[in-house]
Amino acid sequence: MPNVVDADTIFKELKSHSISEFFRKNSQMLGYSGKVRSLTTVVHEYASNSLDACEEAGILPDITVEVKKIGDDKYSVLNRDNGPGIPQKIIGRVLATVLSGTKFHRYIQQRGQQGIGGSGCTMFSLITTGKPIHIKSGTGKSAYECDLTIDIKSNKPVITNMVDIDKSFRGLEIRGEFGEVKYEASDHGVYEYIRRTALSNPHANIRLIDPEGKEYNFVRSVMEMPVRPKPSKPHPLGVTTNDLLEFAHNSESRKLSSFLADTFTRVSQSKVADLKDIVKEVDFDKDPHQLSWDEAEKLVKAFKETKWIAPDLDTLSAIGEEQTKATIKNILNPTFMSVVERKPKVFRGGIPFVVEAGIAYGGGAGKETSVGQGGVVIRFANKVPLLFDGSICAIASAVSGVDWKRYGIKDFDAEPVSVLVNVSSVYVPYSGVGKQAIAQEPEIIEEIKLAVMDCARGLQRYMSGEKNRSVQASKYNTIMRYVGQLSENLSEITGVKKDEIEAELRSLIDSRYKKLLEAEAAAEAKETAQAEGEEEEDVGDAPEEESAE
Amino acid sequence: MPNVVDADTIFKELKSHSISEFFRKNSQMLGYSGKVRSLTTVVHEYASNSLDACEEAGILPDITVEVKKIGDDKYSVLNRDNGPGIPQKIIGRVLATVLSGTKFHRYIQQRGQQGIGGSGCTMFSLITTGKPIHIKSGTGKSAYECDLTIDIKSNKPVITNMVDIDKSFRGLEIRGEFGEVKYEASDHGVYEYIRRTALSNPHANIRLIDPEGKEYNFVRSVMEMPVRPKPSKPHPLGVTTNDLLEFAHNSESRKLSSFLADTFTRVSQSKVADLKDIVKEVDFDKDPHQLSWDEAEKLVKAFKETKWIAPDLDTLSAIGEEQTKATIKNILNPTFMSVVERKPKVFRGGIPFVVEAGIAYGGGAGKETSVGQGGVVIRFANKVPLLFDGSICAIASAVSGVDWKRYGIKDFDAEPVSVLVNVSSVYVPYSGVGKQAIAQEPEIIEEIKLAVMDCARGLQRYMSGEKNRSVQASKYNTIMRYVGQLSENLSEITGVKKDEIEAELRSLIDSRYKKLLEAEAAAEAKETAQAEGEEEEDVGDAPEEESAE
Repeated sequence: MPNVVDADTIFKELKSHSISEFFRKNSQMLGYSGKVRSLTTVVHEYASNSLDACEEAGILPDITVEVKKIGDDKYSVLNRDNGPGIPQKIIGRVLATVLSGTKFHRYIQQRGQQGIGGSGCTMFSLITTGKPIHIKSGTGKSAYECDLTIDIKSNKPVITNMVDIDKSFRGLEIRGEFGEVKYEASDHGVYEYIRRTALSNPHANIRLIDPEGKEYNFVRSVMEMPVRPKPSKPHPLGVTTNDLLEFAHNSESRKLSSFLADTFTRVSQSKVADLKDIVKEVDFDKDPHQLSWDEAEKLVKAFKETKWIAPDLDTLSAIGEEQTKATIKNILNPTFMSVVERKPKVFRGGIPFVVEAGIAYGGGAGKETSVGQGGVVIRFANKVPLLFDGSICAIASAVSGVDWKRYGIKDFDAEPVSVLVNVSSVYVPYSGVGKQAIAQEPEIIEEIKLAVMDCARGLQRYMSGEKNRSVQASKYNTIMRYVGQLSENLSEITGVKKDEIEAELRSLIDSRYKKLLEAEAAAEAKETAQAEGEEEEDVGDAPEEESAE
Repeated sequence: MPNVVDADTIFKELKSHSISEFFRKNSQMLGYSGKVRSLTTVVHEYASNSLDACEEAGILPDITVEVKKIGDDKYSVLNRDNGPGIPQKIIGRVLATVLSGTKFHRYIQQRGQQGIGGSGCTMFSLITTGKPIHIKSGTGKSAYECDLTIDIKSNKPVITNMVDIDKSFRGLEIRGEFGEVKYEASDHGVYEYIRRTALSNPHANIRLIDPEGKEYNFVRSVMEMPVRPKPSKPHPLGVTTNDLLEFAHNSESRKLSSFLADTFTRVSQSKVADLKDIVKEVDFDKDPHQLSWDEAEKLVKAFKETKWIAPDLDTLSAIGEEQTKATIKNILNPTFMSVVERKPKVFRGGIPFVVEAGIAYGGGAGKETSVGQGGVVIRFANKVPLLFDGSICAIASAVSGVDWKRYGIKDFDAEPVSVLVNVSSVYVPYSGVGKQAIAQEPEIIEEIKLAVMDCARGLQRYMSGEKNRSVQASKYNTIMRYVGQLSENLSEITGVKKDEIEAELRSLIDSRYKKLLEAEAAAEAKETAQAEGEEEEDVGDAPEEESAE
């Protein structure tokens, strides 16, 4: 065959590339695609890092975001918080090394989980403006300022102009310049991102100063810190064979039995005894470093056959019903709202998660569309707004799976309705590195659907009440319209004064109308009680809880 | 404030993690989410590597894919090709090191571009079965077999059981075992993936053996290799300031002027002179290693103000009109088809790409839906089928932006129509690492839309012809139904035989009907010519070509 090229020639160009080189070339995968989205991505990364840091330090967050136009498609972004700051000696690894951070190896609910976002901003600033970002940080013990950028080839930080400053400066301030970006007042813009962040973080003060100098203050509506989620050990139902092997081979325990009890939650001595009964061929006294794939596979199978107490629920931090209501009122001020926090569930066998949902109707709910007000789905994961890639998100799948007509919404796209969903978990399975959509995990979709339907039942009662009230009001008005004429005719016939007859008639009609309303309210309440009874059947599929161990 | 945690405590857990650790935890980002999708992802990675290797070696591909069920949600996958093989000393870096390969640093159109896919399969096999993959490779000079897996912590290969085998073995055979996967005959399954691969690679023989032992042979319909795309230098209109700086700082040229001419396509000495006129403040004799961000930024701005010859078109390899027609006929056998290959265009200023589109109607086109046959969009990037995340793909945006009613398709979801789109480029901007959707680049969307509309005009003529023909046929049939009775009556009146009268009448009607058809065909042709005249206005926005340099 002519022109055949051999393998040595083909593979002579074999090279490795660093993770930062990869994302430099594919920055759209981090969320840097499109000018508006790119700017939102920067604000998103900084703001969610600030919220995480404040939460971890136990500080009620005060965050300022300032966006300034500094050239054609060039903006500066400042993000200042009152958090714990970042120690000087590790600033480069935290904000200028891709895949480095405190969050990846932990088993705790937090906004960040990848060790990519902050360093991604540093890189995006470099590749679009050639500039470092400027850092100002104070931890209470010391404070400094510096410039920071990333050496893309080696994925290593480059720090310049480091100076100590007065240690009275507390918190973290990042100022960066970014090119190929645009500030726009759209559904995908910075303002909307901050507004939604305020919705899901009622304990935060957030101030946004837009490029025209206009200031928006989202003031905290609750004064307590959210209950801090506890770091947790993994649940036996949530591990794969490969996880178990990896834990075993890195264990400090000397015996398999103690390794299991030390590594996982809910593994007591009596549970180990149960496991021994199921997998007799495995030696529970063996060194965990010697665990083989086959043995691990048998153990994981045995985990599935064992009854476990559900995962710790205090590892999850939801927004909370009262907090959600307060912010919905604060920001959307709807004529109706209904909020639900479900019980925690698990996906992939044992990863705990909890779903909250809210429906707001009327007032500031819904969004402007070309044909008037329309429905909108407001998505959150670990309280972080998700503005992009909605169509592939588990939340969208769940909401579109709801039969809205059943709940009095004839056309979701043409009613002033906002559906809010927040999914909280130790591990949110994002569909991409840009963390804008939750992967289509069946258990998560199902649970969101149940949460939204919970809320929708309240909406349905409201809508049918509204409908009845409007029908009744129209009947009442019709009758009242004839009261004047009727009273005059009756007065002529009877000789009684028209005013007296009219007053009598009006009071008669009013009292009858009142009874009608009361009867309908009672019927409605009965219906509600029934609906709530039915609901329990929908739930299921959480691991059964034992009463005692 | 109580419970305040300081920065040193928070950051004491700071760690780095390898790219393989990252993707082990987030394997859904590589396409490993859902059992069916995960299996398709494995087949996709191996098959597209085989096609790339054969194309590069100049070998008409013969590929065998065999999927066997070996346990609960466990399957083995074998992928064998007649390609160039992989040299023994680099097999670990090619198939067991994430972010390593021959493709990332090149400027050439190919299916793979990340250096992730093949190693991703090795990792997925490890984390779901604990097994290495088995390799058999022959390059002509030597051949070997080995087992291969990846050390996830270090992102380094682990090779075992390496043996030399008879060097008569040619090509590459990979056999792996995978858990958490499922073979399913769905739109997202392996069979559909292979069928679509055959559609876009008419020069390949592809054999699929499914878990039931059933064999499907997709036989090549063209006997020539696709024209091999040439490796190309980047076009000045496609580089960012950061690109330019990176090229300059790694250049072997001694002067800026020669660096520009050496690095980019279309930069002649006269162009350098033009650039000098625009950016007088930059010294073109300076060492490119000394180029500053400001200077680079000015140069990039000057690039945009200069007239350039469009990028080399021979860097792109499309499927080709004739080839596409041959395979559509082969695989869909529709009653109508229309195929268009557009001229290459550029996006992001200077990255060349070319769009091909085809529309097939009737026959095997469309897909089964619950309400009968419905429309389907078949997406390809660099001839690789994209089966997932369709809703966020530039191709879907473009196709849904077409006003199908204008083209005789009342309801796209309820007609037997297949729309095929292939986007070829040196760099396809995928929205995620899993490479299943093309990012929403406006130039790419616009160009796809024009290509599909081109094809749809043909469809519209066919549909209106079909409609006319069916109206005429029904008129003709109505008349003919009365011919018998009429002839009998006329025979009674005139005494002429019924058969004679009937023959006369039939021939009269037939000839009149023929004239009618001819007149309508002429009117249609005139309409077509007008439509094609209009079309030219739609195109535009390619960089203007100079007649000479």
